[in-house]
Amino acid sequence: MEFSVKILGNSGALPAFGRHPTAQVVNHDDRLFLVDCGEGTQMRCDDFKVKKGRIHHIFISHLHGDHFFGLLGLITSYQLLQRVHPLHIYGPPKLWDIIDLQLSPWGIPPCYELVFHPTQADAPMLLYEDALLTVETIPLNHKIACTGFLFKEKPKERNMRKDQIEKYGIHFTDIPAIKKGGDFKTSDGRIIPNRELTLDPMPPRSYAFCSDTAYNEAMVEQLKGVNLLYHEATFTQEFEERAKKTFHSTAQQAALMAQKVQAQRLLLGHFSAKYPVLDPILKEAKVVFERSSLALEGEVFGVE
Amino acid sequence: MEFSVKILGNSGALPAFGRHPTAQVVNHDDRLFLVDCGEGTQMRCDDFKVKKGRIHHIFISHLHGDHFFGLLGLITSYQLLQRVHPLHIYGPPKLWDIIDLQLSPWGIPPCYELVFHPTQADAPMLLYEDALLTVETIPLNHKIACTGFLFKEKPKERNMRKDQIEKYGIHFTDIPAIKKGGDFKTSDGRIIPNRELTLDPMPPRSYAFCSDTAYNEAMVEQLKGVNLLYHEATFTQEFEERAKKTFHSTAQQAALMAQKVQAQRLLLGHFSAKYPVLDPILKEAKVVFERSSLALEGEVFGVE
Repeated sequence: MEFSVKILGNSGALPAFGRHPTAQVVNHDDRLFLVDCGEGTQMRCDDFKVKKGRIHHIFISHLHGDHFFGLLGLITSYQLLQRVHPLHIYGPPKLWDIIDLQLSPWGIPPCYELVFHPTQADAPMLLYEDALLTVETIPLNHKIACTGFLFKEKPKERNMRKDQIEKYGIHFTDIPAIKKGGDFKTSDGRIIPNRELTLDPMPPRSYAFCSDTAYNEAMVEQLKGVNLLYHEATFTQEFEERAKKTFHSTAQQAALMAQKVQAQRLLLGHFSAKYPVLDPILKEAKVVFERSSLALEGEVFGVE
Repeated sequence: MEFSVKILGNSGALPAFGRHPTAQVVNHDDRLFLVDCGEGTQMRCDDFKVKKGRIHHIFISHLHGDHFFGLLGLITSYQLLQRVHPLHIYGPPKLWDIIDLQLSPWGIPPCYELVFHPTQADAPMLLYEDALLTVETIPLNHKIACTGFLFKEKPKERNMRKDQIEKYGIHFTDIPAIKKGGDFKTSDGRIIPNRELTLDPMPPRSYAFCSDTAYNEAMVEQLKGVNLLYHEATFTQEFEERAKKTFHSTAQQAALMAQKVQAQRLLLGHFSAKYPVLDPILKEAKVVFERSSLALEGEVFGVE
């Protein structure tokens, strides 16, 4: 089952060197979730063959413009494309005022349902849930209220052993209960324990999006064992003071966090306009955490 | 003296086929004026080597997003670039609310002066004036209040004939008055009439930006004799009904307007996403008005 992240923009607040403001598309089982929506996101979707019409949920981390100035353009384009499906937007309460004020010159409501879900940044908050996945906020430590987003697969059902189906003559209507962990009673009354009938499922996977934030130990508990950690790395250690002052992180700090939460893999992004090339950022992170990558625009990273 | 227009975006409301929302840079005597500021304008400036820091005046025609969704990104980037010079923004009154609401999460005012000049769309209105140039609004006929912008050079001073300076021993301190049209009195008391001393100056040039609008006879008087007319041409005649309904123009209507105002040259833009290629639009306009061009992104058009 697909679980991946496509990078549309990896720039810090000031777009530079062909890098664009923050936006990512999380694909889980062919459902697309947009995370942040910097200026130009709708054009980046076109550039990178993301089918905009398949996005039904947009998560906005905070109200610095490089994370949401593309939202109104996308909302408008959906109108022009005569969108039918509801669009769910999750973000700080004031985001709704910003949307509402800019839609008001239309004089008519959008042709599709626009559902706004306000977020709070003080404690983790469940935003989205379906049969396979939950999305919850991650309180971050930024200059203004800011949340990351944790995409977590639900525990999967146990895998039925095909050989046992035949052996015990299990009817297909009994299988759902067994996959959920139940034992099986044969026609002659014997109880076959679940552990004989099933194999362990793949462990649930998770993706954490953490931008923008200073190094933030408060989130370690929530992110423990995350498969893929996206952590902002606006600066290198050379600008540690600047990072501190602006509530951003250095590559080393991002890597320390990856180490601390025992992530499988670290993705670095939100790069300052100070860096024409990004090698120093990657190099610095790798010293601490070898499985680090740059979130390059257009690239897709699997959550594994 | 340079007087030109660089096209940053020529798309209608829905960006498509690599075309971007409306934005143009008018260069008059090396001063840059931004006209409309669709999403992504700051990145388009970078793409086309426009020095953003040299823009001090931004004119916004109306509050449909494809004409201003790039404004907040630009305002924010100026902050990050520690802009010093005031930035003047001209647009519908509500634009200020939209700016203000989105700057409020900063918690601090911008580091530079942001001066807002509200426009009204009911009659031409002088927005800007300096020694060489005026900019006034052009009331357009669109679904919501919308103005174009007319950039007009002031009448130039007469050109001093160098041969006459020598002939009559004219002192350089007398020249400014002669260039303004005055006669010259020689040391022996003779009056030399101005027509002997000077040549006619180049006639003042003008550029009219008209997007978005239905075919609008009301503006003919104001635009009579304009050198370069930019007129939206969202559709071809095939979609005349659609144009009418949405208060847009066809290429034929744009060309008729160019003919009516006796423009030197017509620039077509604001192309609908219905057109993967733009040949039909140009072709349709040229039947009526031969000196028509497509406002292609990245191209520069002289006002001559």
